[in-house]
Amino acid sequence: MATVTLIEYEDASPEVKAVYDDILAVRRTEHINNFWKALAQNPKTLKRTWASMKEVMAEGEIDLLTKEMLYIAVSVANNCDYCIHSHTASAFAKGMTPGQYEELLAVIGMAHETNGLSSGLKVPVDQCYLK
Amino acid sequence: MATVTLIEYEDASPEVKAVYDDILAVRRTEHINNFWKALAQNPKTLKRTWASMKEVMAEGEIDLLTKEMLYIAVSVANNCDYCIHSHTASAFAKGMTPGQYEELLAVIGMAHETNGLSSGLKVPVDQCYLK
Amino acid sequence: MATVTLIEYEDASPEVKAVYDDILAVRRTEHINNFWKALAQNPKTLKRTWASMKEVMAEGEIDLLTKEMLYIAVSVANNCDYCIHSHTASAFAKGMTPGQYEELLAVIGMAHETNGLSSGLKVPVDQCYLK
Amino acid sequence: MATVTLIEYEDASPEVKAVYDDILAVRRTEHINNFWKALAQNPKTLKRTWASMKEVMAEGEIDLLTKEMLYIAVSVANNCDYCIHSHTASAFAKGMTPGQYEELLAVIGMAHETNGLSSGLKVPVDQCYLK
Amino acid sequence: MATVTLIEYEDASPEVKAVYDDILAVRRTEHINNFWKALAQNPKTLKRTWASMKEVMAEGEIDLLTKEMLYIAVSVANNCDYCIHSHTASAFAKGMTPGQYEELLAVIGMAHETNGLSSGLKVPVDQCYLK
Amino acid sequence: MATVTLIEYEDASPEVKAVYDDILAVRRTEHINNFWKALAQNPKTLKRTWASMKEVMAEGEIDLLTKEMLYIAVSVANNCDYCIHSHTASAFAKGMTPGQYEELLAVIGMAHETNGLSSGLKVPVDQCYLK
Repeated sequence: MATVTLIEYEDASPEVKAVYDDILAVRRTEHINNFWKALAQNPKTLKRTWASMKEVMAEGEIDLLTKEMLYIAVSVANNCDYCIHSHTASAFAKGMTPGQYEELLAVIGMAHETNGLSSGLKVPVDQCYLK
Repeated sequence: MATVTLIEYEDASPEVKAVYDDILAVRRTEHINNFWKALAQNPKTLKRTWASMKEVMAEGEIDLLTKEMLYIAVSVANNCDYCIHSHTASAFAKGMTPGQYEELLAVIGMAHETNGLSSGLKVPVDQCYLK
Repeated sequence: MATVTLIEYEDASPEVKAVYDDILAVRRTEHINNFWKALAQNPKTLKRTWASMKEVMAEGEIDLLTKEMLYIAVSVANNCDYCIHSHTASAFAKGMTPGQYEELLAVIGMAHETNGLSSGLKVPVDQCYLK
Repeated sequence: MATVTLIEYEDASPEVKAVYDDILAVRRTEHINNFWKALAQNPKTLKRTWASMKEVMAEGEIDLLTKEMLYIAVSVANNCDYCIHSHTASAFAKGMTPGQYEELLAVIGMAHETNGLSSGLKVPVDQCYLK
Repeated sequence: MATVTLIEYEDASPEVKAVYDDILAVRRTEHINNFWKALAQNPKTLKRTWASMKEVMAEGEIDLLTKEMLYIAVSVANNCDYCIHSHTASAFAKGMTPGQYEELLAVIGMAHETNGLSSGLKVPVDQCYLK
Repeated sequence: MATVTLIEYEDASPEVKAVYDDILAVRRTEHINNFWKALAQNPKTLKRTWASMKEVMAEGEIDLLTKEMLYIAVSVANNCDYCIHSHTASAFAKGMTPGQYEELLAVIGMAHETNGLSSGLKVPVDQCYLK
């Protein structure tokens, strides 16, 4: 249960509605997901966060699916329940194959393991990596 | 400074040398990086970890550069100093462009921000994401 | 579901009851929250933790509401479900306004983002910050 | 050592210089700190991040010093070396007293402890906190 | 709800069944827990992870119960819901006493607290610890 | 470099000296490590933290060496540089063998990996673990 009331489209102020409309248009969906409905309690944060999201998650030198997989990787490491679910769904919607998902998880697991080992052993960074 | 002595190639036991040789061959490099030299104190862990790494980080349905970028994403979220440096170097060695690196960092930053917001607001997962 | 049985007031030993009574008195509430009921399995930890909590969360040079907001900030970063819910409720009970809550979340989100960016870029600390 | 070259004021493009000038003006300082010099490799991220920072860290219903203390709290929990140093320096520059710093650290430590205890015990959230 | 379908024993491929059979034999149980049923979507990861688990969690210079307690400690710090529940159950099944569990949690809580304090204060490592 | 000045024994107030003396006596050492010298800026936190540490890290149903290994496990997961170094040194001082250290690291690495996998797959907790 959220710490704030989720704001549905029909209850939204014009300012919030404008952001919702942009989300629906940019994402070509008919669903405003709960993250935005929770942020909508704070229209300024909603606007700023959506503007950043739109800029950062746009097609660029990294393709959209890869960006979703990177998002999953960070969200697993930070253990954000909501973000894991929503970005895994997004990645599948963008065409992630079961094989890619399997490899994604294997890389995430492996990285966690060597993160733990490197930090535990306090491995010094090789000189050649420092420029 | 590592909590163990790094084992150089010339000081390695035959068992460790065999792993080192495989690393050099598979990665087509002449450099054994410090992570493996630290793990080498424990030949069993060295062998197991390298075998996993070789399997997980092989070309598959996800390409090698993307895997390195995913590794960076996890390592930043876990704040593993060594892994951030070594995998950033690897990603550049595998052809990551400055533009890709910029976008990678932007996605990592954005994911951290919305991870924090979602967790703070305890946003409930949308029903449509749960199947 | 907790890994231990929660100990209700009426089932508590005199030693635990004494701590419960102090919690009720200091906090001027009639509700012992689940955290203490779970800790009560271990009276020594219950006593020590409550004594620390009482000392640390007392009015001081930082006011009570700010302390609750700091607690939320740490709990979000550590993603502690229970602590986020309980300290958000406490902060509202201590008079946190919707506007303050919005700003709190915005700062938390922003800090997460720049934490990720700084760690990813391995930004060296400015000399002027080191004294 | 950063993974990118820090861009000094005199080497900056007009686009980057414009952000630097705004930072200097808003913060009334003559020092561009390394975080921005590292971000400057990516002018778009620099601009977006500074715009967000300016909005989020402005005086509001939460005062500036409290915002810096919240930033420290998150940065310690995320263990961001750079951010801990820079925001601790900023908090002192904004008037944080030694007594406030002591209490801030005590709250941060306490929150970490109970975060660990609550997560370990999987304490269920009290019904009264869920609305 | 898992992001993948859990694979039950009767629906498993021969390759997966072989791993399941080994789990049942090594652990002398009749229960395949959900972690393996989720991993089974990816037989390669299932096999590799189980092989590692069997090697790492075998009796050695550290006894089995201590290994389970170490697993709990890491899982609490990483806040992995599933792992906290499953390894706490395993530790009790391996004979962990209520008194040991209480001390385990106390150590975990204490470590979290001093982790936060040390990181916040940026305490420099004593020379004598560095070799 | 610490954010506070470390307080040496000879510069300590009587209140701080009393804690230092107790540390030296309880630990049978002639070395006050930097953690306490940093905490000493805040005598109240110093006293409270040392009192807790003495209670929690005393011989109990879990032996001293195991407690140090648990401390290392948490500190690696939280990536606390200072704590990893100091508790690894303490564990060796308390008799940790190279073989135990190797197994400790292997368990830590393994736990990190399955923490990541479980969180990524959102594996539901088995009913049998919930009681």
